[in-house]
This record gives sequence, structure tokens and C-alpha cells, in this order.
Amino acid sequence: MSRAFRASAVLAACAVLGGPVLTAQSDEGMWLPTDPPRQQLKDKYGFDLTDAWAARAMRASVRFGGASGGFVSPDGLIVTNHHVGADSIHKLSTKDRDLLRDGFYAKTRSEELKCPDMELNVLQSIEDVTDRVNAAVKPQMTTAQAFAARRAVMAEIEKESLTATGLRSDVVTLYQGGLYHLYRSKKYTDVRLVFAPETGIAAFGGDVDNFEYPRHGLDVCFFRAYENDAPAKVADFFKWNTTGPAENDLVFVTGHPGTTNRLETLAKLKHRRDVTLPYTLYRLRTLEAALTQFSEQSPEQRRRASADLHRVANARKAFAGQIQGLLDPKILGQKRDAEAQFADTLKTQLTGSGQADERYQKSLRRIADLQAVFAGFEKNYYLIERGDAFYSELFAVARHCARMADELPRKSADRLREYRDSNLDSLKLQLYSPAPLYPDLERRKLEASLTFLAENLGGDHPLVVRVLDGKNPAARATELVADTKLFDVAERKKLVEGGKTAVDASTDPLVKLARAIDADARVVRKRYEEEVEEPERQAYAEIARLRFLALGRTVPPDATFTLRLAFGTVKGYEVDGAALPFHTTFAGAFARADALGNRDPFELPSRWRDGKAKLDLSTPFDFVSTADTIGGNSGSPVLNRAGELVGINFDRNRHGLVRNFVYTDIQARHIAVHSRAVLEALRKLYGAGELVKELTGQE
Amino acid sequence: MSRAFRASAVLAACAVLGGPVLTAQSDEGMWLPTDPPRQQLKDKYGFDLTDAWAARAMRASVRFGGASGGFVSPDGLIVTNHHVGADSIHKLSTKDRDLLRDGFYAKTRSEELKCPDMELNVLQSIEDVTDRVNAAVKPQMTTAQAFAARRAVMAEIEKESLTATGLRSDVVTLYQGGLYHLYRSKKYTDVRLVFAPETGIAAFGGDVDNFEYPRHGLDVCFFRAYENDAPAKVADFFKWNTTGPAENDLVFVTGHPGTTNRLETLAKLKHRRDVTLPYTLYRLRTLEAALTQFSEQSPEQRRRASADLHRVANARKAFAGQIQGLLDPKILGQKRDAEAQFADTLKTQLTGSGQADERYQKSLRRIADLQAVFAGFEKNYYLIERGDAFYSELFAVARHCARMADELPRKSADRLREYRDSNLDSLKLQLYSPAPLYPDLERRKLEASLTFLAENLGGDHPLVVRVLDGKNPAARATELVADTKLFDVAERKKLVEGGKTAVDASTDPLVKLARAIDADARVVRKRYEEEVEEPERQAYAEIARLRFLALGRTVPPDATFTLRLAFGTVKGYEVDGAALPFHTTFAGAFARADALGNRDPFELPSRWRDGKAKLDLSTPFDFVSTADTIGGNSGSPVLNRAGELVGINFDRNRHGLVRNFVYTDIQARHIAVHSRAVLEALRKLYGAGELVKELTGQE
Repeated sequence: MSRAFRASAVLAACAVLGGPVLTAQSDEGMWLPTDPPRQQLKDKYGFDLTDAWAARAMRASVRFGGASGGFVSPDGLIVTNHHVGADSIHKLSTKDRDLLRDGFYAKTRSEELKCPDMELNVLQSIEDVTDRVNAAVKPQMTTAQAFAARRAVMAEIEKESLTATGLRSDVVTLYQGGLYHLYRSKKYTDVRLVFAPETGIAAFGGDVDNFEYPRHGLDVCFFRAYENDAPAKVADFFKWNTTGPAENDLVFVTGHPGTTNRLETLAKLKHRRDVTLPYTLYRLRTLEAALTQFSEQSPEQRRRASADLHRVANARKAFAGQIQGLLDPKILGQKRDAEAQFADTLKTQLTGSGQADERYQKSLRRIADLQAVFAGFEKNYYLIERGDAFYSELFAVARHCARMADELPRKSADRLREYRDSNLDSLKLQLYSPAPLYPDLERRKLEASLTFLAENLGGDHPLVVRVLDGKNPAARATELVADTKLFDVAERKKLVEGGKTAVDASTDPLVKLARAIDADARVVRKRYEEEVEEPERQAYAEIARLRFLALGRTVPPDATFTLRLAFGTVKGYEVDGAALPFHTTFAGAFARADALGNRDPFELPSRWRDGKAKLDLSTPFDFVSTADTIGGNSGSPVLNRAGELVGINFDRNRHGLVRNFVYTDIQARHIAVHSRAVLEALRKLYGAGELVKELTGQE
Repeated sequence: MSRAFRASAVLAACAVLGGPVLTAQSDEGMWLPTDPPRQQLKDKYGFDLTDAWAARAMRASVRFGGASGGFVSPDGLIVTNHHVGADSIHKLSTKDRDLLRDGFYAKTRSEELKCPDMELNVLQSIEDVTDRVNAAVKPQMTTAQAFAARRAVMAEIEKESLTATGLRSDVVTLYQGGLYHLYRSKKYTDVRLVFAPETGIAAFGGDVDNFEYPRHGLDVCFFRAYENDAPAKVADFFKWNTTGPAENDLVFVTGHPGTTNRLETLAKLKHRRDVTLPYTLYRLRTLEAALTQFSEQSPEQRRRASADLHRVANARKAFAGQIQGLLDPKILGQKRDAEAQFADTLKTQLTGSGQADERYQKSLRRIADLQAVFAGFEKNYYLIERGDAFYSELFAVARHCARMADELPRKSADRLREYRDSNLDSLKLQLYSPAPLYPDLERRKLEASLTFLAENLGGDHPLVVRVLDGKNPAARATELVADTKLFDVAERKKLVEGGKTAVDASTDPLVKLARAIDADARVVRKRYEEEVEEPERQAYAEIARLRFLALGRTVPPDATFTLRLAFGTVKGYEVDGAALPFHTTFAGAFARADALGNRDPFELPSRWRDGKAKLDLSTPFDFVSTADTIGGNSGSPVLNRAGELVGINFDRNRHGLVRNFVYTDIQARHIAVHSRAVLEALRKLYGAGELVKELTGQE
């Protein structure tokens, strides 16, 4: 971020945070696919969003864990971002076959590479189950009882649905507790890699250009879903548009935005600013430093750490943008005004309906009080229960093995939520993944996170003493990784299948560590769930009820990693008086590489340098639009009015980093790879004529 | 640090921390040059350390701020580390003349480059002024009065000495307050760069190899002291030994070790472990992340940030080693035992001398209590008074200008210590330095540190609100750097010479910022000085008195950035059963570069790659010895029995990172460039025959 962060300058035209005013002029909103803003689209863009359009968009959208993608052929071909696929591409790589560095293309289907542990989900239906969830929680219940009852009914609904439909079934909390929806998804677990460009062009500009524009990245890759060892036949897919978007076109973004905080209260946002984000940034910088130092040791260590390092650096940059946003007094000032204005609205519109403004104020105070409660044990919760103290794939495996021994004998409804019946298959796919793990990397990550634990709690804290077991963090990490057998998937299965007897008898140091901290971890989780999560839900549910009463459903829920539809206009913007065009070109990528000495992260792959003459350098590369996106939208198909794919979203610009809290379209944009860029590169540089044909019907 | 940190394994033979036992077998000790361990050297090595030997070593040793060097010719030629000279080499560089990247050699004296703001000091005498300092502090004084009286008498002694001798005069606190010594030094402020190799070979291996061995770095450079525009004539210098050390040779290290904590109490060390070090690492990782991200933007930005980045990364690695040391229960356990043992010694040896053990216990408790006091405002002290919140050269300038307006009208004895008369010339040398400052770098550093301030104190803290002035940290940093005029040295002089009137009238945003926080900063400094520093000194002075009573002066004081003499044996060591030889070779450097793909930080300069055939590849490169060193010893001459220079110390290995707390010689070593390596490279690669001739008398 070399220039000023101009969040404050762009706020003039912002929608009021969490408040009542959403003008027809604004493109704000990550809308439920079953409840899109038809009237707004009609009024502003003269576009009739039909049920068929919406249904196809829903069933052609693919969820990649915490990210997005879309079907682009009837044979199960899927496009997403390279950085979304990178985890699997990394797992398919070895020292001698570095698919991240060198790229990959399966010329024939038999060459497509099966991912070791990828699960994709395609949403089939949404059902409102709010009444049933809330009915399970009785007014006289303590928050502990309420939490247990809510968890139980959600697990019950999910299990019934799974049994009845065979579809993955998840109850999703919307409006921070205002609504509960049951999402049913078709699941694919045989997913194969079809095409990936080199990281050098997919992530051209690296961390420097991340969250920046102008941008020059071919951040795409292709997978294919299989069923019964054959390409999945799908009825709904996005036709690849060979022209791409023009300036001022209306576009749609369909995908899985992760987390926004626009409906959170001022007190909650201040808590994020002063407690949660500082801790988070301290943690991310600690991990990034450790991974960077590990990477510098040799090219192979750089390769090993690359997936982790990208994730951590990306999160660091996003959270750094968030804290700048929350430290901007204008943003929180606007939130304060919005709360006051909503209180006024309640007073004037809902007189007589049980002192609505008092109920609102009481909920605001309740949420403020809960932040103080949470601050008292928040670090412990993150360190011990969330696992920040144990940044290691192997530790996560060990903990699951240990906890499954305790949890699985219980009724599904009484288990910790991640062990509910309807989630077990997905969990085991991860747990039994044959993807390679690297002892030196695991050791370094554990050393960093165990040290972070001690830094946060102090060397004499009983838990720290127990975890370190008489060594310093470095020596303890060495011992844990040297002596564990959990690199071997068969050992993991033995522990899960052997149940409590096997786990109790295990001498594996990671399993022993997971057991040694489990009582503490469960205590702090219980505190969180009962003293913070449940009462917060209740307070937010009250606010949501008041909002529905006063304003109807005009405000979409905050993002929750579930499918949403956004819309916007393709257009450039101004920075410091200079106009940035709505798209970049291939020529721009070469110019930038030259200007920066062709050095990492601006080093173009040799295929690009050598193949420059073959390319039409005026081909549009990346483009921007005003549509409302956030992390989790990575890989989202960008569609035109006809529902054809014109781009693949992969980022926001830095002006969009405050989108967690506020939508603006003055400078904030999402960034997408242009559909023509993909075709031009596939044809001219990658010899991927078959893939182009599958996408377009033409060579 | 790719292998286990084995501090615990090496403790068996450690000297007992802060306690009574220093065996004749141990090479522990950073000894006062006026009080070297003659008997130990005689007993263990059969070496007679003469007064003449010691006096010459003292007067040929050169202090570089917080580091070391030595005269190596009668014409004022000085050797030190490249990383010590790097700050000046950086200041002498521009975008088009990158002396750090490309190296430098002045073939003739007229080509030698004058450093913009370097001050060197050469110690001439040490005088014990303990009685006078302590006499100024009366028993009935409050700690506030005691602090003021002590500060006043120290300033008075220094001013008297400066007036009488014309020498730089500093009263130094030893034994955490047990003794006060007056150091008089000859000062050189016309210092010119003679030779520097490329950073690529000076710091070969970069952060990866820092604090590691085997090592392959030519971490040397040469300056020359001038007086009256002619090379300084010096009577005392170290003859350059052309053979270098052999295995098992006795060697000496003369230099300015910065900080050790071996005489600190267990409570103090725990405070460091749980409060000071976590904060310090959080801060360093924050700055390192910001500087790294800045560097990645372009080669020129990498050059601009290189000096800062090296300093921060080096500190981060050193402090990371310290926290591993303090989190090793064996190290603190040994400290606990040593305190108990010393209490026993007092009980048995000093019966009747006023309950010596009770006085000891009382002092230990007092120090423990003071840690709790300090913890209550420690972060504020570091952020606001030490300036962690304002990581910017320009802010430091602004603050000095603002404070000098208030301080200079006062009597020297009543001023903040850095503004005492005897220090003003040195301060102005820094303040009026014409060295280039870069707006983009200053901005990025300010953004990072202002954000760090807000992360630590919270966005609603009145000081944060005042500092940010209605913007977020990024926007505030932009505004401060864009609008200040302090890049211009003339503006600084105007402010200092204009005094309070000029400062009060200044509209410079950095001056206004410095003034806006000054009252808070002074409050927290006063609290620190009166509630922590002075009472700690008194308690440590009591412990020192008891130690002197029971054990005499057998334990040298902790390091204080003042001249010390250490000694040790040149020898290799074992790691994981493998023997590491006492020296590396040029051949090893080429092998390591090849093995790691000749990529940064293992990319040898082209001069080395192209000149390989000219070199005797068996030339010893770097070597290790057991002598007791710490940060600040960088650039220390390593001497043989004859007092000739056989090497230039530049680092410790990672086993030596616990030396702040405990000396060990099992694996811990300091690392030095071999005297032959320098000659071979100067002759064969750099065409520096004149320099070789000045060092050795031979071409």
C-alpha cells in the first residue's frame, strides 16, 4: 500500500451501516440466491431476474471450502481461482514435480490428476427453519441450556435431511441469529485437476499486488468433478462468453462470501478493533515471519511452505486493511449515527409495539457487555480451543482422533458440532488425506505457535508448563514431530477405529498432547458458547426482529460462507486524479515485469517471456466492477445478463478492504480475470485447444 | 534454526548464574580493560597479561556507537564489520551508486568517502566515581529526589571532566548500580570509507545463516579516522597477522558488548520472558513485516529499506533466541538454584554482618515488586517515551528539536540526560546529518508504528486519538510525511537555534505531533525513572555490595556497551554427533551457493563467481572460539597472545543466543572473519594492493 489509504474520502456516498437506508442507486448487497433484489435490478438496470436464471446460477455455482467456482461445461468442468486450487495443486506436487511453479495441463481426461482430499458442494435448496430452531429454545432456559437445545435441534434437522435426501445438509445462522436456514448440497469428492498456469502468472505481483489494481494475474485453474469414475454430467453450467464485459455492463457475481460485519453493533466493532484484530495481526505476523524464514532456507523449503505462506500473507493483508478501516473515525462515526438513526426510526415508526427502541438499546448494551466478558478469556479461546497455539496439520489430526474417541459414542445432537453425524464423512476425507506433510515444516510451524502461546500466556502459566513439558518451544516442537506416527494415514485410522481404548493407550506424543489440553480446551469452548455466542445470538435476533418489523427484509444478512448473488457495473475509477481503466491488458503485464527487473514477484514464467510474440497483447487481462464481494468470493463466476461467464473474480482492491464494515463504490472494486484472457492464454501459450473447445465449442 | 535448540544440553558445564562460582576452567567473562583476569589467564593458559598489552588493546579499540572496531595502521585505518559500517555505507549510497550492493574501494586517500554523521570513540581512561555518585544520594531522599540527585552528580562529573580534558566523558553504571565509572574517550567525527565488499559476500546467507555456523561471510569493511582533514596518526594499533589462528590457540576479543542479564534476578528474568520480550517480538515482527513488504515493491525500495531491515531482522533473531532461552526451564532453574546458593553463602560466610542474607532476600523481593509496578505502564513507556509508536528518523528529529527548546535553557544537571552539555555535540552530529531520508520509507515506517500504537492501546485511548488526529494510521502517516519540512537540515537548525519561540511557532506537523505527546511522554518517563529505575538501582547496589563482601570482584559486571576484554580458545564443536571444524574455507562458500541455486541470500557477487579461479580455495574464511561475546561485539578485533589481529568478530552461533543469561562453551561460539581471508580477497578479487600493503607492509 504505497499510497494513502483513502477510505475516509470515499464514505460520502456509502450506504448507512446496518441501518435502514439502502437506496436504489447502490449496488450493495450479498443477496440470498432465493431472495434476490428483483425490484432494485428492475429499477436501476431494467433487468428482469427470472426464477430460471436464479435457479441455474445457484446450481451451476460450486463451493470450494471457503471459496467459490462454477461449472463451465456439461461434463463437470469447473473454473475457480488458481489461489483457490493452490492447496490441492500443492498437495499434488513433489520436489520433482512442482505443479505450482511449472503449471499443469491434462491434454486428455486420463491425465487429469485426482486431488487427495477435495470436497465440492453444489447448493440444491434452501429452507427456512427459524421457527423450529427457536421453538427448541424455551424462555426459561439458561444460556447454557439454550445453547445445548439449539445445537441439538440443528443437528437433528441436519440428520433428518441427510437421511431423507442423501444431500449434505447444514443449518446456517443468518443475521447473527435472526434467521436459520437449512442448506442442502450435492457433494463431489472425486475432483481432478485439469489445468493450472504457473504461479508466476497466476499470482503475478505476489503480495505486493495483492489487493491492488491495476492488476495482471491469470488467477484461474480448472478442475473436473467425477462421479463413479466418470466425468459428472451436470444440467446447469455457465456458458463461457468469448467477448467478455464492456464498460458499464451490468454483471453478477455468484459465490460464497465469507464474513462481513456490517450488521454488528458499534461495541462489537470496537471490540474487533481493540482486542480481536490486534491479537490476530500479532499472530499472523508471527506465523508469516516463521514461514518466510523457513522458505528462505532453500528452494525446496520455499515450495513446501508456499501454500501456508500465501494463506497467511493474504489474511495479514486483509486484516491489516480491516484495522485501518476500524481506526478511521469516520467509519465508526457513521456506525454510531446509524444506530442512533435506527433508534429514532423505531421510536417514530413502532410506537406502541412494546417500547421497540428500549428493546433495541437493551440489546445494544447486552452486546457491549458481552464484549467485556469475552475479552476476559478470548486469547485462551483462540490459543487452546481454536488451536492457534498448535499451528500444525498433524496436531489437528491428533486432536480429531482424541476427540472422536470421546464424542462418537454420544448422540449426534449432544456432540461438539463438528462431530455431528451429518458432517462425519467430510471430516474423515480431511483426516485420512494422503496429501504429503513435511516434518521440517510441521516442526517450524509448531515451534512458532508454541512460542506464541508462551508469549501470550507467560512461561509459568500451568497450561504452558504442561504443553512444553520441561523443554523450550523449539525443543518441544522437535520432539513432537520426530516421535509422532501420525504422518501415516493408517495410524490415524487405527486410532479413530480403535476408539477410546486405542486413544487412551496411544503413546503418540501429539495424541498425548491433544489429550493433555482437552479438558482446558473444552472448558474455554463451553464458556465461549454459553457466555458469549448464545447470548449474542439472542441479542442480535432481537435486533433482527426489530429490523424486520421496521424495514422488512430490505437489508441482506451478513456474509456467512454460503451462496450469495451480488451485482454491479463494470467500470474504472480515479486515484489521485488519475483514471484507472476498467481493464488491464497483456501488454501491461510485460511492461510491469520489465519495469521491475523481471524479479520475483514480478518474474514472468519463461513460457510467457518466450511466447510474447504469439499473444495479442491488447487482450484484456483483468477487469473491475462495483459488485459487492468479500473474501470467500475468490473463484466466483462473473456473469452477464444472459448468465454467461465473462470473468472469474479473484480479489478486491485496497479501497475494498473496508467492505467488511461498509459498502462503497467510489473507488472500491472487485477484480476478475477477463474471459478472453483465459482463452487467449490457453490457445496461444498452453496448447490447450481441447480445453478451449470444451469451453466454447470452438478450437 | 532448522535443528533443535540445544541450550539445555549444554548447561551441565555452565558457570552458575550470578552466583559465586567462576572456575579457572571457564572462559566466561567480559572483563573491564582496567581489571582483566590476570590470574585466570596465568593459571589456565600460562599467559602473562602485561599492563602495556592491556593499555594498547584499550587505546587501539574503537567504539562505533553500539559496536566495535580497531585501529590497524598508524594512519588511522580502522577495521570493523560490514554490517557495522552498513548504516554509513547506506547513507553514502544513492539509487545510482549502490555501495551496499556493489561494494567500494578507495584506491587513493583522496577517493575515501566522508561519512555524513559517524562518531567514533577511543577509550583513554577509566576512573571509579562510585563514592561521589553515591554520596550525592542521601538516605532520607525519596526515590524521585534520589534519581534527580544521581542524574545531577553524573552530569556534573561529566562536565567537569570534559572541561578539564576536552575528552568525551561518560559516567557508566556497572553491576546494575553497584559501581559508577567515568569513561574518557577521544572522539573522531571525520571518518571516511576506505573499503567495503558487496553485501552479497559480507552477509552471505543473509537472515538464514545469521547466528549460524558453519558460516561464509566476509563481514568486514575499513574506515579511516581523520583529524584536521588528514589521516589521524595513532600510536596504538593492531598489527595484522598474516597467518591467522590455529586450532586451540588462545585468543582475545576486545570490544563493546552491549547487554547481558547474568546478574539480574530470577524475577527480573521472568518479567523479561513474560512481558518485555513478547512485546519486543510483537513489535519487531510488525516492523519486519512492514519493511519486507516495502522492500518487495521494487529494487530501489529494497535498497532504501535495507539498513533498517537488516537491523530489525537481526534483533528479531537475537530476541527470538533469548525467549527460547528463558522458556527453557533448566536455565531459570539454574538461576533459582544460584540465588538459593548465594543466600546460603551469605548465611555461612557473613554471619554477624547485619543479617546479610536478609538484606539479600529483601533486595530480591524489592526487585520482584518493581517488575509488577513496571508491568503496569511498560508498554506506554516504550510506545510514547522510547518512541516505538513513531518509528521514523524524522519524528526523532522533530522530538529533539521540540525538547531542546525546553531543556537547553535549564542547567545541564537538571536536563533529561541526553541533553546534558557533555552530550550536545554528539547529538547535533546526528540531528544535522545530511544523510538522505526517503519519504516513502518514512511514511511506511510511521504507518506501521502508528498502527502498532493503536493495536496496543486501543482506538479510543486519548493519546491514540490525539496522535491520529481524526485519520487512520495510514492516512495520518501520509499527511505527516507529506507536510513536514524536516527533510531539510536547515529547517532543523532553524528550530534548534530559534529555541522555544521557533518551536512554539512551528506549524510543522511532526513538530506539532512531538509537542502534542510530550507531556504524556515526560510523565511516563518520570514514572519509570523514579518508580522503577532508581529503586532497582538501589536494590541491585545492595546485592552488589553483598557480592563484593562475600566474593570480592571475581564476577565481572554485566555488559553495558563499554569496552571489555574477553578471552577463549579457538576450537570447533559437535552438533548431533557431527564435528564442525574451527574454520570454514572459501571452497565452502562456493559449495553452499551452488547447493542453494545461487539465489538470494546465497547469491555470490559476480566478482566472486567470475574470480573463483584466482582464489586459493583452501583459504580459511570464518572461524570460531569460546570467548565470551554478545551483541555490540560486532567488529571486535580478535587478537593472539602477541596482541596481533587474527580475526574480526561478527556473530555468535545459535547456541550462543542464551549468552545474555548464561555462559557456556560446549557448543556456543563467537564467529570471526579470519585475517587471511581478508588479505586473500583484497589481493585477488578487489585489486586492493595498497590496502594490503598498509595492513601488512607487503603487497
